[in-house]
Amino acid sequence: MTFFEKLLEITRKKDSLLCIGLDTDIEKIPEKLLKEDDPVFSFNKLIIDETCDLVCAYKINTAFYEVNGDKGWISLNKTSDYISKDVIKIADVKRGDIGNTAKKYASAFLSKLEFDAVTVNPYLGYDSIIPFIEYRDKGVFILCLTSNAGAQDFQKLKVDGKYLYQVVAEKVLDLNKYRNCGLVVGATFPEELKNIREIAPDIPFLIPGIGAQGGDLEKTVKFGTDSNGEMAIINSSRGIIYKSSGEDFASAARNAAEELKREINLLRR
Amino acid sequence: MTFFEKLLEITRKKDSLLCIGLDTDIEKIPEKLLKEDDPVFSFNKLIIDETCDLVCAYKINTAFYEVNGDKGWISLNKTSDYISKDVIKIADVKRGDIGNTAKKYASAFLSKLEFDAVTVNPYLGYDSIIPFIEYRDKGVFILCLTSNAGAQDFQKLKVDGKYLYQVVAEKVLDLNKYRNCGLVVGATFPEELKNIREIAPDIPFLIPGIGAQGGDLEKTVKFGTDSNGEMAIINSSRGIIYKSSGEDFASAARNAAEELKREINLLRR
Repeated sequence: MTFFEKLLEITRKKDSLLCIGLDTDIEKIPEKLLKEDDPVFSFNKLIIDETCDLVCAYKINTAFYEVNGDKGWISLNKTSDYISKDVIKIADVKRGDIGNTAKKYASAFLSKLEFDAVTVNPYLGYDSIIPFIEYRDKGVFILCLTSNAGAQDFQKLKVDGKYLYQVVAEKVLDLNKYRNCGLVVGATFPEELKNIREIAPDIPFLIPGIGAQGGDLEKTVKFGTDSNGEMAIINSSRGIIYKSSGEDFASAARNAAEELKREINLLRR
Repeated sequence: MTFFEKLLEITRKKDSLLCIGLDTDIEKIPEKLLKEDDPVFSFNKLIIDETCDLVCAYKINTAFYEVNGDKGWISLNKTSDYISKDVIKIADVKRGDIGNTAKKYASAFLSKLEFDAVTVNPYLGYDSIIPFIEYRDKGVFILCLTSNAGAQDFQKLKVDGKYLYQVVAEKVLDLNKYRNCGLVVGATFPEELKNIREIAPDIPFLIPGIGAQGGDLEKTVKFGTDSNGEMAIINSSRGIIYKSSGEDFASAARNAAEELKREINLLRR
């Protein structure tokens, strides 16, 4: 089964394109949990317990774990282990390095930590991306157009009449021989999202930027999905996991996730 | 004291532009060390003991540590702690993420692990770089033109008559308000190195790609340094730390480092 087939199977079974970003900041989790051995994992566990039936994926951004050092890595490992097999586990690492080094990162996240997918930065070119793609049953989401203001600086520069992000999208299509490559496209640029979907009609998009970052949900679903309303993973992090800062954070997260899943599905149909 | 001043002070005091990359691969270290509690740290410690008088910097690529999970992070931490204050400790992390996430990475490497400098990927633009720059006394080396073949894919595309890597170099000059920004430029493209030095005559270059990757040392020193033969950090990793695979690895590394330092200094004068 290719990664694309796996993704379709999971999104259909769960009837969900929703991904929750476990960007768990120790400074933002309820005080009560700080007494636990591993507060970050305890927070994640409660969020996962409450939301796992609602999502097709969880995305874990390593920055929020690395800031806690080796303890953070243990939280990352435990969180990855805890997530059930019926969702896609995405390591949002945005790594990019030369070949022999990229192999180590690929091994760290796709083999040792057993993530199902990873995000990769394209700046170093094909030989920095291939070591991830060689894990043929894993997904590789390459940054195309990111959701932040700085996306203007380089990604939106014109190269021979095309934007750099378009050149990246085309290169990723070339590399997609195992049907395991996708693109990261921010929800904050809907017209560009539409344009990138035209260039790459069949591959999955990982779409951050709704919620705290302000992306428009209707356009995200309309332009970000394929012609069947599938092949998109729509991420919300802060908008769900910090919906409440109180002890009801997990049930508040469930309510927010349920609502967002429903809204997305209404827009798909 | 700005980072630039600190770098000049150290390179002058040590009379060295040499950086050793501690890309320590557990699969490549002598068997005898595998019995130690932390073989990677034990290897690094012996390399550092033998070479610390010869270098201006050590560069640690996180990929080689993350592949070992939380134990790898402990090795990374211990290695960072062990390196003395009279060299520049560079975390070669090549991170790039949106602002609030980039802050976490900056804290992880520049505050918690107390590195003196970090490498950053520019693809996400200014707001992904600034959180690192805000550590004003730390160095931020932004990837400009990398040493690998894939550098052709995007970095060498033409944007309004300029190469993308040139646009990146110019942007970094704009961001350099605290005199703490440098560029990563591979030794494998000497003509481009010359061209980038013309664009950015005064900022430090971190130059990988000599040794195993085949960069020309003479051109690297000639084109990579500033008009005083300074402001360059020339890295060798595999060519030094794996010079011998036997139990004499540390003294072999010293000999290789001594020779390379001497060659670089002859070419500077």
